[in-house]
Amino acid sequence: MASSPRATGSSVVPRPGGRTGRIRRQVLDAVRAELVEHGYDALTVDTVAARAGVHRTTVYRRWRDVGGLLADVFDTAGDDTWRPPDTGSLLGDLLALNDEVLAALTERPPATMALIAASFRSEEAARALGRFWEDRYARCEPVVRRAVARGEVPAGTRARPLLISATAPLYHRLVLMRVPAEPGLAALAARSAVLAASAGAFTAPEPGDT
Amino acid sequence: MASSPRATGSSVVPRPGGRTGRIRRQVLDAVRAELVEHGYDALTVDTVAARAGVHRTTVYRRWRDVGGLLADVFDTAGDDTWRPPDTGSLLGDLLALNDEVLAALTERPPATMALIAASFRSEEAARALGRFWEDRYARCEPVVRRAVARGEVPAGTRARPLLISATAPLYHRLVLMRVPAEPGLAALAARSAVLAASAGAFTAPEPGDT
Repeated sequence: MASSPRATGSSVVPRPGGRTGRIRRQVLDAVRAELVEHGYDALTVDTVAARAGVHRTTVYRRWRDVGGLLADVFDTAGDDTWRPPDTGSLLGDLLALNDEVLAALTERPPATMALIAASFRSEEAARALGRFWEDRYARCEPVVRRAVARGEVPAGTRARPLLISATAPLYHRLVLMRVPAEPGLAALAARSAVLAASAGAFTAPEPGDT
Repeated sequence: MASSPRATGSSVVPRPGGRTGRIRRQVLDAVRAELVEHGYDALTVDTVAARAGVHRTTVYRRWRDVGGLLADVFDTAGDDTWRPPDTGSLLGDLLALNDEVLAALTERPPATMALIAASFRSEEAARALGRFWEDRYARCEPVVRRAVARGEVPAGTRARPLLISATAPLYHRLVLMRVPAEPGLAALAARSAVLAASAGAFTAPEPGDT
């Protein structure tokens, strides 16, 4: 799914061709596969190099360590043409977006979850995941601009807190609390964000507000 | 802070007295201190035993491994008398609750963050953290019941999704996206949850709703 880091590269635009691009693709595919199959603790530059069929010194020179490999997986995940859903209504867009988030967080094997968990092992990977999410939320801002234009939410509604309000409960339950998604969770979060936004929750605060 | 696992035991009720209780306290204090000072990777049963001044076989016998030690830290964090704020309004209660969450997630040294990060290293610890959060959200349910009784939100408003809507954006930004808390984040999340709840976002869904 496209609003979380993919473990498969299917939605990714063609990467630089030639030998460099091919090696990068092989190595990052190997990182994802090793992570899903054997977990972070078994992830080493050497196992990745072996699986990718690439010389280990090439991997060390280019990615340095496991943190560098993971960071590049996250950076590559953003190299696509993903755009948010455009269903004609704010609720429809957020429902579709949350369906994508839910699909990613519950996919089998749990590749997205493994990537998020691995981000807690490396500062470099954590920063790269943060960049990925920032980019995804930035790409979603048209969802809110369209809703403002349609008059669904007040002028001045800020996109970022609205989008986070809609999606955060899914991550909170599934990633942090690690409980199964209760039925309707994705829809409930989308709907409550719309109701809050309609009531003006995300318009720019008055100066002095906290 | 009391809605996240504490790294200090200050708010914890007296544990079982005598030698068993004393050893447990020493060992779990050593786990927290080692985690904050040296991180998960340096955390071993042996370093914990040495720091606690307890024989290593005692620690192995009782806690088995690092996962068992972390799980007991989370379980112990729930052995307190914490109750949610009662300020007289739903917004006041959620603002106060989010101030506690924010304080925990930004404390220095980052003990709560270290504990959450460590939960990604051990299934047993992850389950224990999930239990801790479930317990905290359960204790917060009176906040919503009082709001219903005061007529601030519709009858039938469900406590859990409202509470998660109010708190999840903080965890999402600080724990997962790892960005600094923008000013007003805690208040914004509390306020949008109240507006959504007032508009009926968290009343029980009609049968057939998704």
